[in-house]
Amino acid sequence: MNRSQLLYAGKAKSVYRSEVPEELIVSFRDDITAFDGGKKDIIVGKGAFNARISAFFFSYLEEHGIPTHFIRMTDERTMVVRELTMIPLEVIVRNRAAGSIVRRYPFQEGQVFSPPVIVMDYKDDTRHDPMINEDLICALGLLTREEIQTIRKLALTINRHLTDLFSNKGLDLIDFKIEFGRSGDKILLADEISMDSMRLWDRETGASLDKDVYRFDKGDVLSAYAQVVKMMVPEGYGV
Amino acid sequence: MNRSQLLYAGKAKSVYRSEVPEELIVSFRDDITAFDGGKKDIIVGKGAFNARISAFFFSYLEEHGIPTHFIRMTDERTMVVRELTMIPLEVIVRNRAAGSIVRRYPFQEGQVFSPPVIVMDYKDDTRHDPMINEDLICALGLLTREEIQTIRKLALTINRHLTDLFSNKGLDLIDFKIEFGRSGDKILLADEISMDSMRLWDRETGASLDKDVYRFDKGDVLSAYAQVVKMMVPEGYGV
Repeated sequence: MNRSQLLYAGKAKSVYRSEVPEELIVSFRDDITAFDGGKKDIIVGKGAFNARISAFFFSYLEEHGIPTHFIRMTDERTMVVRELTMIPLEVIVRNRAAGSIVRRYPFQEGQVFSPPVIVMDYKDDTRHDPMINEDLICALGLLTREEIQTIRKLALTINRHLTDLFSNKGLDLIDFKIEFGRSGDKILLADEISMDSMRLWDRETGASLDKDVYRFDKGDVLSAYAQVVKMMVPEGYGV
Repeated sequence: MNRSQLLYAGKAKSVYRSEVPEELIVSFRDDITAFDGGKKDIIVGKGAFNARISAFFFSYLEEHGIPTHFIRMTDERTMVVRELTMIPLEVIVRNRAAGSIVRRYPFQEGQVFSPPVIVMDYKDDTRHDPMINEDLICALGLLTREEIQTIRKLALTINRHLTDLFSNKGLDLIDFKIEFGRSGDKILLADEISMDSMRLWDRETGASLDKDVYRFDKGDVLSAYAQVVKMMVPEGYGV
C-alpha cells in the first residue's frame, strides 16, 4: 500500500487509494475521540478490534442479503472495500434510549423503543453533524423519497440481524450508527460497524461494552472491546 | 374577563379561562422577543396588529375548509378560541431558505424549496425547542403516523392559501410556524398566524416585513407590521 495515496483521514480511520480501480483500502487506526472531538486518545490495539468485528458483521450481513462495501481484510487493521460515493448521513438506529436522545427529549435512559427509532444526522464537521429530516434530505438532493425508504428498510433489517447476534451472547444492542454509499444506482452499507459506533450493554450487569467506557471513564476500553470481539467473532474467522 | 383566571402566559400571548366551558380567551400582548428570549422589548400596538391578522387568517382558512380554534374577537387584541389539548410541536413550513436553516445546512439564503420543506420542533423551553423527526414524535406518543400525515397535509394546504393571499399583494411568504391542538379526535389549527411567526419579504425591494425587522434592527417594527395588516386585512374586517 502506497501511503502517499491517502484520500481521506477521519477521526479513527484512514482511507487510501488502491492499485485496483474501484477499490479502496481502509485502515482502522488506534485513535479514539468523543464529544465532537473534545476528548482524544490513542488506545493501542483498538483499531484491530474494530476492523475485525466490522469485517465479521459486513460478511455476516452480506450472507444475509445486505449489500456492503466490504471485500476482504489484508491485515488485522486493514480492509479492502468497494469505492462508493458516500451519502453524507449518519443513520442512527435506536432500540433503547441512551445518550444524546435522553438529553434532547423527555425519554428515560434505557426506555425501550418499539418499533426502533431512526434518526439521521447530516455529516458536516463544521456544522457539528446536525440532525436532519426527510424533507431536508430531499431538498439538499442527498436522497430521493424512495431511497430514504430503501435506507430505512436496510437499517431496520441490519438492526434485526445485529440485535439477534448480540442477544444470543447476552448483550443488548442499545443503538448504532451506520453510513451508506452509492455504486451506480445501488445503495450499499459502508463505513464500519464497531464498538466505536454502537452502544452495547451486558444484559446481566448493565455494563457498557462500547465507546461509552471511554467517553465516561467507565473502565478499561481495550478490555471491553476485546471482550466483545471474543464473544462475537468465531475463533477462526478471517485468519 | 376575570384576569385572575390566567391559565398560561407565553412570550407574547396570555391565555385565560372563559366563563363559557370549552372556550378560552387569548390576549395578544405587546411583548416581543427573539433569539430564544435573549432579546426582549415592548412595542406598543404590536399585539393588536398580530391579533387582527391572525383573526383574519383563521377566518379565511375556516372558510376554505381548515378547522381552527378561532371563534371571535372581543376587542382589538383579544380573541375567544376553542379550548384544545395542544400538541407540543412547532410546525414550520419553508418556501425559501432563510434564518436557522441556512446556518444549519448548506442552503443559500433565499433558495426556493419546491416542494416546500416542513420541519417540526419539539416545544420545550428548557430544551430550547429541539428539532424532532417522525419516529421520535411517535415514540414520544405525540402523534400517530396517520396524524403526522394529517398535519403535513393541513400545513401544506394552509401554505398554499397564505402564499396566494400574500402573493396577490406583492409579498413573498418565505416561511411560517404554526401549532395544532386536539378536540376529541379532531386536529385543529391553533396558536396564531402573524408577523411574529413568519418571514415575509416585499417582492420588489426584498425588505423584511416581519419579526426579522426586530431581530436584526432593520427599521421600525410597528410600521412594518402596520403595513402588512393594511395590505392584507380588508378595511371593514372584524369591526
